[in-house]
Amino acid sequence: MNGQYTIATLGSHSALQILKGARDEGFKTLAIANRETERLYRSFAFVDDVIALDNYSQFPQTLGELERRKAIVVPHGSFVAYLSLEEHKRMTIPYFGNKAVLDWEASRELQREWLTRANIKMPRQFKNPEEIDRPVIVKLYGAKGGKGYMFIRDAGAFAERTAHLNEEYTIQEYIIGVPLYIHYFYSPLEDKLEIMSMDRRYETNVDSLGRIPAAAQEGMDVRPSYVVVGNQPVSLRESMLAECYRMGEDVVRVSKEICGPKGLFGAFCIETIITPDIQFYVMEISARIVAGTNLFIDGSPYSYLNYSEPMSTGRRIAREIKNALLSNNLRLVLDDTSVI
Amino acid sequence: MNGQYTIATLGSHSALQILKGARDEGFKTLAIANRETERLYRSFAFVDDVIALDNYSQFPQTLGELERRKAIVVPHGSFVAYLSLEEHKRMTIPYFGNKAVLDWEASRELQREWLTRANIKMPRQFKNPEEIDRPVIVKLYGAKGGKGYMFIRDAGAFAERTAHLNEEYTIQEYIIGVPLYIHYFYSPLEDKLEIMSMDRRYETNVDSLGRIPAAAQEGMDVRPSYVVVGNQPVSLRESMLAECYRMGEDVVRVSKEICGPKGLFGAFCIETIITPDIQFYVMEISARIVAGTNLFIDGSPYSYLNYSEPMSTGRRIAREIKNALLSNNLRLVLDDTSVI
Amino acid sequence: MNGQYTIATLGSHSALQILKGARDEGFKTLAIANRETERLYRSFAFVDDVIALDNYSQFPQTLGELERRKAIVVPHGSFVAYLSLEEHKRMTIPYFGNKAVLDWEASRELQREWLTRANIKMPRQFKNPEEIDRPVIVKLYGAKGGKGYMFIRDAGAFAERTAHLNEEYTIQEYIIGVPLYIHYFYSPLEDKLEIMSMDRRYETNVDSLGRIPAAAQEGMDVRPSYVVVGNQPVSLRESMLAECYRMGEDVVRVSKEICGPKGLFGAFCIETIITPDIQFYVMEISARIVAGTNLFIDGSPYSYLNYSEPMSTGRRIAREIKNALLSNNLRLVLDDTSVI
Repeated sequence: MNGQYTIATLGSHSALQILKGARDEGFKTLAIANRETERLYRSFAFVDDVIALDNYSQFPQTLGELERRKAIVVPHGSFVAYLSLEEHKRMTIPYFGNKAVLDWEASRELQREWLTRANIKMPRQFKNPEEIDRPVIVKLYGAKGGKGYMFIRDAGAFAERTAHLNEEYTIQEYIIGVPLYIHYFYSPLEDKLEIMSMDRRYETNVDSLGRIPAAAQEGMDVRPSYVVVGNQPVSLRESMLAECYRMGEDVVRVSKEICGPKGLFGAFCIETIITPDIQFYVMEISARIVAGTNLFIDGSPYSYLNYSEPMSTGRRIAREIKNALLSNNLRLVLDDTSVI
Repeated sequence: MNGQYTIATLGSHSALQILKGARDEGFKTLAIANRETERLYRSFAFVDDVIALDNYSQFPQTLGELERRKAIVVPHGSFVAYLSLEEHKRMTIPYFGNKAVLDWEASRELQREWLTRANIKMPRQFKNPEEIDRPVIVKLYGAKGGKGYMFIRDAGAFAERTAHLNEEYTIQEYIIGVPLYIHYFYSPLEDKLEIMSMDRRYETNVDSLGRIPAAAQEGMDVRPSYVVVGNQPVSLRESMLAECYRMGEDVVRVSKEICGPKGLFGAFCIETIITPDIQFYVMEISARIVAGTNLFIDGSPYSYLNYSEPMSTGRRIAREIKNALLSNNLRLVLDDTSVI
Repeated sequence: MNGQYTIATLGSHSALQILKGARDEGFKTLAIANRETERLYRSFAFVDDVIALDNYSQFPQTLGELERRKAIVVPHGSFVAYLSLEEHKRMTIPYFGNKAVLDWEASRELQREWLTRANIKMPRQFKNPEEIDRPVIVKLYGAKGGKGYMFIRDAGAFAERTAHLNEEYTIQEYIIGVPLYIHYFYSPLEDKLEIMSMDRRYETNVDSLGRIPAAAQEGMDVRPSYVVVGNQPVSLRESMLAECYRMGEDVVRVSKEICGPKGLFGAFCIETIITPDIQFYVMEISARIVAGTNLFIDGSPYSYLNYSEPMSTGRRIAREIKNALLSNNLRLVLDDTSVI
């Protein structure tokens, strides 16, 4: 039955995982690529078809074609990067997820309110540069993939480094601890939260600085940058898992209060730093599939606890859509703008 | 046949892996949890039942119930943390492993004797603070999960940092090299040693220090801590594998001399540092399943060499118990205090 | 049909993966080990037979026996280390791969020409020590597995550190960025390039330096060393995958021009550093299976995109040989010196 539907996504970010998962669950698959990536997506047997655009901003032009193919769009990080919030909301193509969450995610202030109501600890935010009394991370507005993050050690350095800045930014306390990204899936059909996998990001150049001896670093005047180019797998101490579920469940619970009855559903990720007193500090929430799940296209130790087959987050999304179709509940897993 | 038996463990550490493995091998499964973790363990389909305690120290009160259920207890790190050695030995519930090993593991002196007799290189130990002539790690007695470890760079810093200490501690040479934890399984039924997997620990804050530029660190006066919050997968150069087997086999051989004819069996872990001259320095041995195996609930590259299905250490334990039952040899895989 | 043939390799490096893969594809398997490793290789059920030598230099003495067994040799890094280029070329035993590539790989100058023609960015090379104006890596000729690499921060340190050196070396710009090793397989039968997996190396002591606080390092006068003792898994940002394929395809294309019509085929690896502007700098190419693939004996997220079963690089090699046999094309996957 689900074989009549096509799962479609932009050719980037986690598209391979999403489309492989869709195929494994019996859907037809479609990648919307650009001229550079067209060949890549065509080369995989599980991709049924590719539409190539000169520019991702032309995506809205494909919507008629997507409708004809009975496409269901699964968004990922590149959707938000390439299409504005307004374009997102204008689309009536069936869309996995709740677009109302996008506003709460896009604004650092609203996101902070959401997480605070979910009883989640966050790094201190400095509204006023004069208050800076410890190392901070300065994040430019709209910084993507770690680009535009600056490590600044004190108020003096802050003045010097930000003098030339025209853009807006936020100032966040630098928490000393190890990063951990938790990949969740919340099923609206079963009202159940699963932990799918975990990772830490692989960032250039900051993850290579430790390989340079301290003495040599000084001569080199190295500035850390946080550009995400990959991911590494991590597992978490089991005694901390209950708190991961608690955080995820509270995030979902509050989302139902703040953005419509459906709230946040499907894949999401909480990005944490763990301090030596075993506390999670949350830097950010991503309200959709994150690239760290690409480590687990063939399954993860956590997803194996729930599934006897390799279950990636991408495949879990397709499974949810399939289950919705089989139980005649497709509306429950789509945004309300979707015209079926 | 093994379906009459229940594999039981405390709800912590590597319980999910142990119980998932038990279910995959056809056992019934039971988690003894506390009020905070009860819900977590109930949420997994492979956990048949959960007994929730207010406090793990009440564990002995569950022993009657465990007997009625024909439970076989599989211990992990949290058992040693929550139950004293005396309580361990008093229990007559069927217990996977040899309790006599616990004494040799609990004392740093006896452990050192054991490893020395197995021809294993260890970091130098300083009995007298005056002898400190290089960076050292000071470990408080009973330090768990890396908590209570201090990096100290010289004798002067030692005097300053330990002045206030009332607890006992050991002083170990700080070996500069990369950590590697080797997960073994020794089968008493087949008299065979297997390498199941390998990891390195993920420690806060020490594994995040390298991300802070050297110049900034100085201003921050960062003190490293070694609290273990997770694990990361590693594979080892194949030419070093033979030495891993040699170390593991010698550890098992000596254990048969020092703690009864059964010696050490089941899962264990040797915690090493590898130096640039390709030598293993062993920091410690854990005589049971370690949390690093949680990375491999769905199997590891090493276990795949021996098994055509995903074989975690937890599942390997259940497999051994099943094989013992099938060959009418259950006594061989249980401590001698076990009343069957 | 392929059951009449034996896949043979030296007992080291990635032999377990190669022989496990060979068995999974229906071949007989043979390890040529030494006295220290003989027992290790005998202990695995998928190794049909082991020939033990006192010294790997005796390998040519086994060639008659290998012929009788209808062996096909699959080379790995240790072959190049233990047998000279001349010995390689003299052998007429069926050999997976193209020996003409070895000359282009062994010389840093030829390798540089090859990569330049493939439009691949490389770190700057300094012919003259006087030109050194930034941190460099000095690599002794014939340095293996990272041994014999020196980090040198400026021209002054260079003079001091190399004064005693009698060996030849190259001087390479030190690129600040994160390492990524890309594991490829090029199928001559299908004229198709696959990405099998990715890793980063685990090097002692350089990957442990970041765990020592900057202040303490100075007192310790730590010198980084780059001895490879293991590997860690990594996944790459999906938007960078197309460039990975581009680099791999250009490397294969140029190889057909420079070393015979067959060019480079089978497994190979491009070793990169990724800088904050998201550029790949290539340090080196390895024209055969690399040890980093040992992380993925049970499959990788990337190989899972193409195969519904665990497909290691070792197994992929055996699959290619099997496909060649089935289509009566064995010559296409062997060096031209091979006498079938």
